[in-house]
Amino acid sequence: MNTNDKLAGLRLAMKAAGIDAYLVPSTDPHMSEYVAPRWQGRSWLSGFTGSAGTLIVTKNWAGLWTDSRYFIQAEKELAGSRIDLMKLRVAHTPEYKEWLVENLEPDQTLGYAGNCLSLVAARDLDHKMGKHDIKVDATHDLLDYIWQDRPAAPQKPIYIQPEAYVDQSAKEKISRLREWMHRNRIDYFLVSALDHQAWLLNIRGSDIDYNPLMVSYLGVSAEGKSDWFVGPQRVDKAWASSLDLELFTYKATAGRLIELHGQGQRIGIDPSTTNLAIYEAAGGHTTLQKSSPIPAWKAIKNDKATSHIKNAMARDGLAILRLRRWLDSEEAKQKTEYEIVNQLTAFRSALPNYKGDSFGAIVGWKGNGAIVHYDPPREGSAEVGERGILLVDSGGQYLDGTTDITRTFCLGDPTPAEKQHFTLVLQGMIDLSLARFPQGTSGVQLDILARQYLWNDSLNYGHGTGHGVGYFLNVHEGPAGISSNPRSKTTQYPLEAGMVFSNEPGYYLEGEYGIRCENLVQVVETSPGWLAFDTLTMFPFERKLIDSDMLSHRQIQWLDTYHQQVWEEMKDLVEGEERSWLEEACEPLLIDAAQLI
Amino acid sequence: MNTNDKLAGLRLAMKAAGIDAYLVPSTDPHMSEYVAPRWQGRSWLSGFTGSAGTLIVTKNWAGLWTDSRYFIQAEKELAGSRIDLMKLRVAHTPEYKEWLVENLEPDQTLGYAGNCLSLVAARDLDHKMGKHDIKVDATHDLLDYIWQDRPAAPQKPIYIQPEAYVDQSAKEKISRLREWMHRNRIDYFLVSALDHQAWLLNIRGSDIDYNPLMVSYLGVSAEGKSDWFVGPQRVDKAWASSLDLELFTYKATAGRLIELHGQGQRIGIDPSTTNLAIYEAAGGHTTLQKSSPIPAWKAIKNDKATSHIKNAMARDGLAILRLRRWLDSEEAKQKTEYEIVNQLTAFRSALPNYKGDSFGAIVGWKGNGAIVHYDPPREGSAEVGERGILLVDSGGQYLDGTTDITRTFCLGDPTPAEKQHFTLVLQGMIDLSLARFPQGTSGVQLDILARQYLWNDSLNYGHGTGHGVGYFLNVHEGPAGISSNPRSKTTQYPLEAGMVFSNEPGYYLEGEYGIRCENLVQVVETSPGWLAFDTLTMFPFERKLIDSDMLSHRQIQWLDTYHQQVWEEMKDLVEGEERSWLEEACEPLLIDAAQLI
Repeated sequence: MNTNDKLAGLRLAMKAAGIDAYLVPSTDPHMSEYVAPRWQGRSWLSGFTGSAGTLIVTKNWAGLWTDSRYFIQAEKELAGSRIDLMKLRVAHTPEYKEWLVENLEPDQTLGYAGNCLSLVAARDLDHKMGKHDIKVDATHDLLDYIWQDRPAAPQKPIYIQPEAYVDQSAKEKISRLREWMHRNRIDYFLVSALDHQAWLLNIRGSDIDYNPLMVSYLGVSAEGKSDWFVGPQRVDKAWASSLDLELFTYKATAGRLIELHGQGQRIGIDPSTTNLAIYEAAGGHTTLQKSSPIPAWKAIKNDKATSHIKNAMARDGLAILRLRRWLDSEEAKQKTEYEIVNQLTAFRSALPNYKGDSFGAIVGWKGNGAIVHYDPPREGSAEVGERGILLVDSGGQYLDGTTDITRTFCLGDPTPAEKQHFTLVLQGMIDLSLARFPQGTSGVQLDILARQYLWNDSLNYGHGTGHGVGYFLNVHEGPAGISSNPRSKTTQYPLEAGMVFSNEPGYYLEGEYGIRCENLVQVVETSPGWLAFDTLTMFPFERKLIDSDMLSHRQIQWLDTYHQQVWEEMKDLVEGEERSWLEEACEPLLIDAAQLI
Repeated sequence: MNTNDKLAGLRLAMKAAGIDAYLVPSTDPHMSEYVAPRWQGRSWLSGFTGSAGTLIVTKNWAGLWTDSRYFIQAEKELAGSRIDLMKLRVAHTPEYKEWLVENLEPDQTLGYAGNCLSLVAARDLDHKMGKHDIKVDATHDLLDYIWQDRPAAPQKPIYIQPEAYVDQSAKEKISRLREWMHRNRIDYFLVSALDHQAWLLNIRGSDIDYNPLMVSYLGVSAEGKSDWFVGPQRVDKAWASSLDLELFTYKATAGRLIELHGQGQRIGIDPSTTNLAIYEAAGGHTTLQKSSPIPAWKAIKNDKATSHIKNAMARDGLAILRLRRWLDSEEAKQKTEYEIVNQLTAFRSALPNYKGDSFGAIVGWKGNGAIVHYDPPREGSAEVGERGILLVDSGGQYLDGTTDITRTFCLGDPTPAEKQHFTLVLQGMIDLSLARFPQGTSGVQLDILARQYLWNDSLNYGHGTGHGVGYFLNVHEGPAGISSNPRSKTTQYPLEAGMVFSNEPGYYLEGEYGIRCENLVQVVETSPGWLAFDTLTMFPFERKLIDSDMLSHRQIQWLDTYHQQVWEEMKDLVEGEERSWLEEACEPLLIDAAQLI
């Protein structure tokens, strides 16, 4: 079945259902960032495999909206399909809505599967279409009719977090949620987001790439037994009963919600992570719609989690050390970016507690490093040469933590421009690391610390400065973040002690090279009401790229102290040549900059 | 008539009108910051004369809400009045609404004069009361019944801006507004805010303290004659006819709007600066509610305005110079803060183009300087002694510009702590002055530059960093500003080339001293898409308070360059001893900091 056959099948199904335009978004029923194959319908239908895209199919037209990261890939993958590539002017915006309003007639019907849009998104769509008298029908998942071998919801292994790595008992977490439910007069709170469930139950899975999660819903009762819709055969019964969990199949969720609603239970849902179909099953407008408190709790890593994370970081540094040394070896000559990604995964997977990568590693040689979110293809990725900049952004999932580190390496000798640009980026990363700020400060206020040196030279980078990072959970998590968008709720959210963020300014010279320096940092309280960052990531910066004349005394001090700390944290993990290499890489910079003393 | 008699009278009027609680806010029908005596009803009724306060009177209770700046003053002024002082937990918030909701019964009626709340505020009040079935009646200005000698709307002199100081002709400004009206399909746009009218017509008045404005409404027609409700006898007829203005009395506004609405005119209003009564007269929900484009236009000072402003700034520096020298003279010994304010006004009023002060000067000796918005009283203001910190925040209104400058002076020798705190504040002010940033950057992103040195020492200040400043208009204007509140529209508004802001970090040690460094700065484009600040204020910083060892080389360079510029701009305005004094005050700091060379 090629794309055009699939579209013909969809159009037949649309006709039967009385639908004039059908919308296929990129998300799953849980509003996940990474989705299992079952919900990769947009990719299956259109042939476009990028992570972000929206497909709209009408009787005689089809179009796929995606952003500039994917224009080239989408053109290739859509070739011959009769699907128009619709280039988003602004990434992550629903520009397709404007198209719908302009191209559908009043009384025509827009259809989509109600389980693939959040309640918030569904309401906005309803509102915009309603203004133009366009009808919306969210009751049909038409892909089911044409996708013969559609994968089932995944059922991969689930495992209880080993006691040693638990930050707080699941019982305590559930109690806390119940207290919140009592305050909000909720009888039954439906937890839909996958990482919220994993965090609450101290359980992990492998249903989805890069995120240690299982596909399920969790219904927490204010009193008595709670319901976990995960598949009863997947979970240890004794463990479930110790948490007073009744086990159901994934498919039983809607039926159970209808039943509970019928019994007069006051069901609470989080409108931004609950899909429309589940909301309807839970009683629609009679549900209590409340932002879940779990993201705010989950973001704060307690002392136990923090000490585990620090161990994971030191080990993770070892994988980077091995990669860096390997890159200088004979063996690495003429390897491709794709092979380097695999080599890095091999180094990580040899480490204790490794459970997978935390995202698809970005390895970009020269100009490819300037392509943000570059994903080196299996076929045709660039071969590393004798001299140039190599950007390596990667991370691991360990039982004791999630890592995300970017180091910019230089093979051969750097050019003066490369050194200058690297140092501007490093200065910003250091100044953000050095920030001290009062409680209540939010990411949008701190962002400039990472950009100011670039800005002074009329340079900038087009991505955020920092995202939240989970504890052996998603590498991207809310509710707070650091970016220059003053109108984002994430960046307005106050930073709190215990939260972990990436600190990752960069600079990208199109066609030439990409530079990024990324550490994970944790917010710590330095005195009552005052916060600062503690750096978690452990790996030295590429010495030959640092122009120490550009650094202030304070920045040099930070770097020397950091390298000293890297040495202390990692030295017992290395021996022989690796140890000598690390010792040299962590030597104080002041030796180079003696003129400042 | 004492306060209790007035309240008794109000209660009789309330009873007659069927009103259970009466609300008296602090604003005028134009949502002005400073209001004419006619609308100082809250002050007249309660006896509390502070600038911010809300009075609520019920059958058997009365309370006045104000913020911590005014607690002491309010306690004094309310003593003996049977009005309870209600202390706001958060300044500028409508906490009285919670009180109303808790203390009024369903079906009781809250009354207020509909011309003293903006449409936005009135809607919010309606919404909150409606939730509890409390009725709202905005049709009675009950003060009219009891305030026998209530002042009329002011009718002070109005003058056309001299051609030499006009930034752009009124005709061009009106055309621009008409183009905007056409795009928004508005037949008649009511301009309510006083400074919007003054800017649009290039005319100034003196109806209100500190703001060179007249009390009026302006109705701009998309075609044909426009209406100015100002009092026909106040304005030159030839000038009015040259702008196609029909002149009406102020009181005629509502009637004229009712007439135009009756004729089917599509009337546009700005909901945040138009009061409820005027909105109703203009057709209520049939009006087109659009944020006025004038604040965004007015904020951008063109080259002509900028060159005038620079002249005004240099002259204004002369007033400060004279004050600073006078403070060291025998004559100033044992003068009070109040006398210093008057002396400063005398120095300013001797300068060409002076039209008044731009706000009540803040002169705070020692601990009084730590009281933000301190207003030295006529009786009992502090006497300046031999040694200590004197905070002087003041500004002038000149035909060619509005100024606002704070300098912190030290009489006698500073203590090490005073020097340290002063220098931390100065460093922040300099770093903000040195900022470079891309178009689209907003104030909340820049704010940290002014605070970072204080934050590093766990110090802070409790006010914003910068407000917009008009061109011979209000010293506080929108739409943009610089502060650490990420949820304010003002601070989210992108800075644009031509805008003028204050740059005024401070530090306040309760009971000891207040420190603030304030310059006005203008946003300038340094290269396409890149912005920076150009400093407009011209006066040197107090040399003996600067600890040059704390400054970076870049900060010293900024200071030396700035002082050099002050000298260049001001040297032709001074001679003799004043010239020598200025020359010395502007000498480069690097002489003191030779060790850095």
